[in-house]
Amino acid sequence: MHALIVHCHPEPQSFNAALTDVARDTLAHMAATVEIADLYAEGFDPVEGPRHYAPPADPDYFSALKEQREAQRPTDIADQIERLERADLLVLQFPLWWHAQPAMLKGWFDRVFVYGELYTSRRRYDEGHFRGRRAVCSVTTGGPAHTFSPYGRGGPIERLLWPINYSLHYMGFDVLPPCVSYGVQGGGIAYQDQGAFEQHLAAAKQHWSERVARLPIDTPIPFTGWADWEDGVLREEHPMRWA
Amino acid sequence: MHALIVHCHPEPQSFNAALTDVARDTLAHMAATVEIADLYAEGFDPVEGPRHYAPPADPDYFSALKEQREAQRPTDIADQIERLERADLLVLQFPLWWHAQPAMLKGWFDRVFVYGELYTSRRRYDEGHFRGRRAVCSVTTGGPAHTFSPYGRGGPIERLLWPINYSLHYMGFDVLPPCVSYGVQGGGIAYQDQGAFEQHLAAAKQHWSERVARLPIDTPIPFTGWADWEDGVLREEHPMRWA
Repeated sequence: MHALIVHCHPEPQSFNAALTDVARDTLAHMAATVEIADLYAEGFDPVEGPRHYAPPADPDYFSALKEQREAQRPTDIADQIERLERADLLVLQFPLWWHAQPAMLKGWFDRVFVYGELYTSRRRYDEGHFRGRRAVCSVTTGGPAHTFSPYGRGGPIERLLWPINYSLHYMGFDVLPPCVSYGVQGGGIAYQDQGAFEQHLAAAKQHWSERVARLPIDTPIPFTGWADWEDGVLREEHPMRWA
Repeated sequence: MHALIVHCHPEPQSFNAALTDVARDTLAHMAATVEIADLYAEGFDPVEGPRHYAPPADPDYFSALKEQREAQRPTDIADQIERLERADLLVLQFPLWWHAQPAMLKGWFDRVFVYGELYTSRRRYDEGHFRGRRAVCSVTTGGPAHTFSPYGRGGPIERLLWPINYSLHYMGFDVLPPCVSYGVQGGGIAYQDQGAFEQHLAAAKQHWSERVARLPIDTPIPFTGWADWEDGVLREEHPMRWA
């Protein structure tokens, strides 16, 4: 097994960095090979736009889809895609900022999942480019777990992560349930003391390590696929309409 | 009334740009004053990180919350906040990229909604900094409307926009139902001819113009607030648990 960890956090000593180390080490113990795309350390540019395409496919009108399909692939994106193509397992490690991935990682979606090469109108979902491969999010939140429960004020964590997990499904990945480390305060800002921080970190590392070990056998999140739809909508007789 | 339109699209001739023009013109007809923050045109930097804080509050460990609260405000962010502070109405105009806002706009959330000044653990939700002000998303999607219906393969549009609308609610805004222009293809890439494109654009502009006129009186999306929760979770006896 070969894994790619896309790591998105600006601080090398962060809780997120510790979790990426855990994933790397656990995967190594499983005899997997591992690459890490450390987006901040690499200075990844997350902003899709005309500056990446020279010459542009259309000099008069910038369309991301048209440039991605027709213009020459930007060098940094070709490199990101090569790493993705090598991986049987994709791990996204990031903090939840404003109820989603940080802009740095959002732009990784915007720029790396290129139209034409990695998806088309038909090569999506269960016929997507990365079908047969697995993806999982490992996420830290500032808020405590109960605020992301079904009746929590943040709404269920599944709902917040839906646009991300759905996008991974769109690309064909089998998306595994996320590993969420709740109540992580940046820079230890809200911990009572160093001991409380260390204890929290140790528990989160243990939990994630156990999850990583099961990633090859975990059951993916059930998504519907082409056979379930008629013209893009769940078939009238589909059991999920009547569950 | 004073409105701020945060416009996020790299192409000045885009469908999104036309919708921002419509909002600007309609608001002007309503005797409102309007400012536009054109994030791409201004070269906004969406990546939160240590490079924005010199000197940093903590040179040994980068925490976004700590720097936002304690370090000197970056100049570009001070400017964005000034514009926000002037506005009674916030309009976000953007295309749905990978089931969320583009990285450029995601980073506007990450960087502009600063901890300490614009929110704290208590100044959130219905006690948030921007309470009494209104916010609305105007969004274009590539997929057609029925794929974002409750049984559509993309899931309901409300679910995709939840992290964004919830973040606006978090800041205290009254969040209005979004205006969604479906089936917008970048660069007219999938239109049969120029006539079909013009017809679609005209209909979307008309629809959005009518919505803009009603923004001052539209009913906000109902969110729960502090009085509904006990320790961050909906109270046991809350009617929404039994609806």
